[in-house]
Amino acid sequence: MQAVRIVLVNTSHPGNIGAAARAMKNMGLERLCLVDPQMFPSAEATARASGADDLLAAAHCVDSLEAALADTSLVIGASARNRTLPVPMLDPRQCAELVMQQPEATNTAIVFGRERTGLTNDELDCCHYLVQIPANPAYPSLNVAAAVQVISYELRMAAGLSLDRPGSRHRYATTEEMELFYQHLEETLLAIEFLDAGNPRQLMRRLRRLFGRARPNENEVNILRGVLTAIQQRRGNPMP
Amino acid sequence: MQAVRIVLVNTSHPGNIGAAARAMKNMGLERLCLVDPQMFPSAEATARASGADDLLAAAHCVDSLEAALADTSLVIGASARNRTLPVPMLDPRQCAELVMQQPEATNTAIVFGRERTGLTNDELDCCHYLVQIPANPAYPSLNVAAAVQVISYELRMAAGLSLDRPGSRHRYATTEEMELFYQHLEETLLAIEFLDAGNPRQLMRRLRRLFGRARPNENEVNILRGVLTAIQQRRGNPMP
Repeated sequence: MQAVRIVLVNTSHPGNIGAAARAMKNMGLERLCLVDPQMFPSAEATARASGADDLLAAAHCVDSLEAALADTSLVIGASARNRTLPVPMLDPRQCAELVMQQPEATNTAIVFGRERTGLTNDELDCCHYLVQIPANPAYPSLNVAAAVQVISYELRMAAGLSLDRPGSRHRYATTEEMELFYQHLEETLLAIEFLDAGNPRQLMRRLRRLFGRARPNENEVNILRGVLTAIQQRRGNPMP
Repeated sequence: MQAVRIVLVNTSHPGNIGAAARAMKNMGLERLCLVDPQMFPSAEATARASGADDLLAAAHCVDSLEAALADTSLVIGASARNRTLPVPMLDPRQCAELVMQQPEATNTAIVFGRERTGLTNDELDCCHYLVQIPANPAYPSLNVAAAVQVISYELRMAAGLSLDRPGSRHRYATTEEMELFYQHLEETLLAIEFLDAGNPRQLMRRLRRLFGRARPNENEVNILRGVLTAIQQRRGNPMP
């Protein structure tokens, strides 16, 4: 539970930040990260946090989602809508099981979007998985703090039931390492003229989803970057 | 779900009534009963209910818990504390299973007490079961609307009203398509001299594991093979 952070993106209402902090502390979560909150700190956040104002005081405030995710290696985005993205969609119970199956000390972020509009497609592209709370199709959009409550509750339930963690010889690549890989990949695809600089985005998004699903470990990212470097070194060096 | 009512006893803050109504409607519950609320109706309740103001408008307001429970035959009380009462204590999942096991049209009430003090002993005596949400022992008391959210969520999960799985526009690549991709990949890695023909196997195994985990769809395999073809076409064509 200590390796799990809740990330709230561009929250409008400070009361929701406070209520989310209370829900987290009730369930035993401690790490709150706020990306560009519209109003924070705020008396309303503190009031709604009730006894969880220590979480607010310790909250990390950052400017961008990338900064919030830099040292994480599992990122799960909350989505109220059915998306056609090829990203695995979990319900909250499956989400909690996934988190509890990670090797210890896998920095994990669960990301909640704006009250009205949720997460953008670019933000969803940062996620390895999506989690959706099953809801009334006629009225599916939960309050963001209520959504934090449900996800945190399932984490607590799963933590109480879970077995020993599987060991892994390699840690997963962090978001920052993956970003460096994607930059390297994009440069290389431009150099070999596979990527059209005039309309680059859809291709990189698709590749991000593909590699994001695979969740490479640090060793695998090193292999992939080695491949890219080998391609670049063909510069002026004709293929056999 | 239609036979389940949520009963809020002597709620202090109208915002909590509104937030509880929203949580209920999100999860597909419709019947809200208010026992002696301290302020209702209220603009704050309506604001926090968001689009669930129809539940507020239809809420039953009564003077006593007995009146709220008169036509029910299963009563479950929410309790934040460990009680020494000889009443079975359930967690939210067990509570939802119990409710779903009832014969159809068994009127069921789930009763939530005051923000600060919960339910009195007399009120608990009206309950067949208690439900307790597992929580941080150092900070166990949930906001009442957050508690309604968790219990309602478990009811929805137990009712089997889980996610509509999003369809995928693309089928997964077949084993044969993946084998053709791996052959193409191996040829290309040999051509750029990243792969040592003298000891090729460990690298290809690692890459197979990586791409195997991602389970590419047919479209993604086409993209990857397009990249490989672009690399091969650099033959004799120096990088910029």
